[in-house]
Amino acid sequence: MKPTLQVLVDPPYPVYVGAGLLEQLPQLTKARNVAIVSEQQVAALHLAKVRDAFSAMGREVIEIIVPAGEASKSTTEWSNGLRTLAQYAFRRDDCIIALGGGVVGDLAGFIAASYARGIDLIQAPTSVLAMADAAVGGKTGINLPEGKNLVGAFWQPKAVVMDVSTLSTLPPNLFDHGLVEMFKHGLLARPDLLDALLDPNLGPLSSTERLIDVVTASVAVKARVVAQDEHETGEARAMLNLGHTVAHALEAITNHDLTHGEAVAWGLLYAAHLSHLNPKPGSQEGGHVDWRPWVRRLIARIQPSVPPALSWEDVLVYLERDKKNRRDSRRWVLANAPGDPWLASDVPEQMEQTAWAAFREEVDHLPPQGPRHATLGSDEESV
Amino acid sequence: MKPTLQVLVDPPYPVYVGAGLLEQLPQLTKARNVAIVSEQQVAALHLAKVRDAFSAMGREVIEIIVPAGEASKSTTEWSNGLRTLAQYAFRRDDCIIALGGGVVGDLAGFIAASYARGIDLIQAPTSVLAMADAAVGGKTGINLPEGKNLVGAFWQPKAVVMDVSTLSTLPPNLFDHGLVEMFKHGLLARPDLLDALLDPNLGPLSSTERLIDVVTASVAVKARVVAQDEHETGEARAMLNLGHTVAHALEAITNHDLTHGEAVAWGLLYAAHLSHLNPKPGSQEGGHVDWRPWVRRLIARIQPSVPPALSWEDVLVYLERDKKNRRDSRRWVLANAPGDPWLASDVPEQMEQTAWAAFREEVDHLPPQGPRHATLGSDEESV
Repeated sequence: MKPTLQVLVDPPYPVYVGAGLLEQLPQLTKARNVAIVSEQQVAALHLAKVRDAFSAMGREVIEIIVPAGEASKSTTEWSNGLRTLAQYAFRRDDCIIALGGGVVGDLAGFIAASYARGIDLIQAPTSVLAMADAAVGGKTGINLPEGKNLVGAFWQPKAVVMDVSTLSTLPPNLFDHGLVEMFKHGLLARPDLLDALLDPNLGPLSSTERLIDVVTASVAVKARVVAQDEHETGEARAMLNLGHTVAHALEAITNHDLTHGEAVAWGLLYAAHLSHLNPKPGSQEGGHVDWRPWVRRLIARIQPSVPPALSWEDVLVYLERDKKNRRDSRRWVLANAPGDPWLASDVPEQMEQTAWAAFREEVDHLPPQGPRHATLGSDEESV
Repeated sequence: MKPTLQVLVDPPYPVYVGAGLLEQLPQLTKARNVAIVSEQQVAALHLAKVRDAFSAMGREVIEIIVPAGEASKSTTEWSNGLRTLAQYAFRRDDCIIALGGGVVGDLAGFIAASYARGIDLIQAPTSVLAMADAAVGGKTGINLPEGKNLVGAFWQPKAVVMDVSTLSTLPPNLFDHGLVEMFKHGLLARPDLLDALLDPNLGPLSSTERLIDVVTASVAVKARVVAQDEHETGEARAMLNLGHTVAHALEAITNHDLTHGEAVAWGLLYAAHLSHLNPKPGSQEGGHVDWRPWVRRLIARIQPSVPPALSWEDVLVYLERDKKNRRDSRRWVLANAPGDPWLASDVPEQMEQTAWAAFREEVDHLPPQGPRHATLGSDEESV
C-alpha cells in the first residue's frame, strides 16, 4: 500500500485513501493481537472482512462492538473496552483499529490513548464525516453527563485508512451531511473544491475515483493544519472551527436534533454573514469577497433541517460556554474570501447581533417546500 | 522560587525541593481556578495551607478529596473527579494540583491528562516514596479490576514541588519504605548516596538540609533517566525497574500485604543474587562487584515484612504477566556493580532458579527476632 499523504507531526503518519483498503489492513501493523472497535451497524457491514484478513494471517482478533450513536462515547463503554483488552492480556505492542464513524473513532482513540498509557491505533473511518474530519488529527474523547468531549486525549494514529468503498452503503442524507466538513475545508484553503462538492451527482454511488479525489483534497487541508498545530495550542487549528461556534450552540439548543453536519452548514452561513460585515483589517481592494452565495448553494444542496427561531440572547448563553474560547474573549473564525480565513478577537457585539438578525431573516424566508424544522432540546451543554 | 533542577523533556519542567514550599504554590501557576486533588489523611494535614495561599490571591479553589489508599485509583474516582471539574466549568487554562502520595499523584495526573484533552498539572508529593519516584516522570494511571495501572497516560507536570516539611508527619515505617526507591536510584547511578540512606538517624525528623540533600540526589537520578526516555520506549527508563520485576510478583502474590517499598527491597536482593551469578558480558577484571551486602544492610535498616515461602514456579506465573516484558523475552535489570546497571535479555532459566534458591535460603535464615511475615493474597494480577 502506498500512502496518499503524510500527516507531518512527530512522528509523521500516513493516510491511505482508496477502494478495497480494509482487506489490506494487516499490512499496516505487526501486532500479534488486534482489537477492532466498531458499532453494530458498521460491524454488520464491514467487520467480517477486516477480521478475516487478520485471521488469515494467524493474528488474534478481539471485537469490541458498541451500540451506534453518541451515547456510546461514555465512561462506561470506555471502561468496558479497556477491561476487555485486559481480559485478553492485550499488551503495549498490540494495536487497536477504529472501524466506524466519528463516535467509534473518538471512543476507540481514547481507549488506545489510555490502555497501558497508550498503544497503537489505526483509524479506519467509514463515513464521509469521519474521513473529512475526525479520523485525522489525533483528537479522541468521550462525553460526561455535563457535556460532550469533556474527557479525552490527543493521540495520533499510526495510520489512517480511508476505504471509500464503505461510503456506498451510507444513506444519502448522511453522505450529504459529511460533505459539510469537506466544504469547510474548501472554504479554508481549497476554493477550487467547492464546485465539485456542490455537484448534485456526487453521492454514495459516485465512482471511486471521484470519491477518492474529494476525500483526498479535503484531508490534505486538515492534515496541513494539524501538522502546524498538533495540540491546538496555536491559531492554525482554531481555523478548523469555521462555522463551529454557532454550530455547537445549535446542536446543544436542539439537543442534537440538528446533526453535526446540518449545524455546521448553518454555522457557516452565520460566519459568512459576520465575515461580510467585518472585513479583515488591512485587506486589499477586492480582497474582501462576499461568500454567502457559496453557503446558500451548500444549503440548497444538502437541505439541512431548519434551526428553531432563536434570539441572539438565546444563542449567546451557549457561546459563552464554548470551550474553544479562552476566558474573557470570544474569537470568531471568519473568512475574508474563500481560501482566506482569519481569527477575529474583538468583534463588537452589535455586529454579532446584526449578523444574527440577517441570518435569522434568511432562515425564516427559506422556500416553503424546504427542509424540516428541528426541535428545541432540553438544556444540555455542548462544548 | 528557584528550581532545584530541571527535567529535560520537551518542554522542560522544574523540580523544587525545599521546606515550606506548599505555601508558595500560587507563584507557579497563573490559572484562575485550581483544583486540589488529595486524600483524606493528607488533606487534614496540608490542604488548608495550600487552599489559603490561593484564596489569599483571589483564586478559586476546588477540592477533590478521595479516601486514602490504592482503591481510590479507580475509574469511579477518576470519573467523579472529572465531573466535579466540569460542574465548576473548569477550563483548559486552569490547573490541577496533586497533593499527596503516589495514589493521589497517579489519579490526579490522569485526571489532568484527560480533562479537556489535557490541562496543567503540578505534582506536590507529600511522601518519600512519591518524591523519590512517582512525582517525576509523567506516569499517571488508575487500576482496573483486572490489574494495576492498566489505564493511564504519560502526562508531564508543569512543575514538581517537593516540600520536605510534609515528611515530618510520616510514620517512620512509611518513611523507611520510601527510602527503598531512593536506594535503588543510588544503586543505579549514585553509589555515594547509599551510605547516607543507610544512616539509622535519617528519618522523618531529620534536619530539612539532610532531607533536601537525599531527596535532591535521588530525584536527579530519576530526572536524568526520564529525560533520556520520556515514554519508556527505549532502554534508559527500563533501568528504573531494578528490583521491580520480582517486586511486582511479590506484591501480587501477597495481594499488597507487602508494601511497594518492602517488595522492592526484596526484589533488589533477588536482583543482587542474579547479578552476582551473571556478570555483564565484557566486564573488566574487578568490574563485577557483589552488591548483595548493600541490599542486606538496606533490609537490616528497614526491616521489611518477609515474603511467604514461594517456589520459583510460583513466582514465574507472575513474571510472565509483567507488562514490562515484551512478548517472548524476559528482560532483567541487573547491576554489574553499584552505579553500573545493564539490561540482560537472555538469562538462562537455570540461572534464574539458582538465584531464587539462594534468595530463598537467605530469606529463610533471617534472624528470628526479624520482621513480620507477609501473607499470601488472593490471586490478583499486578502489572
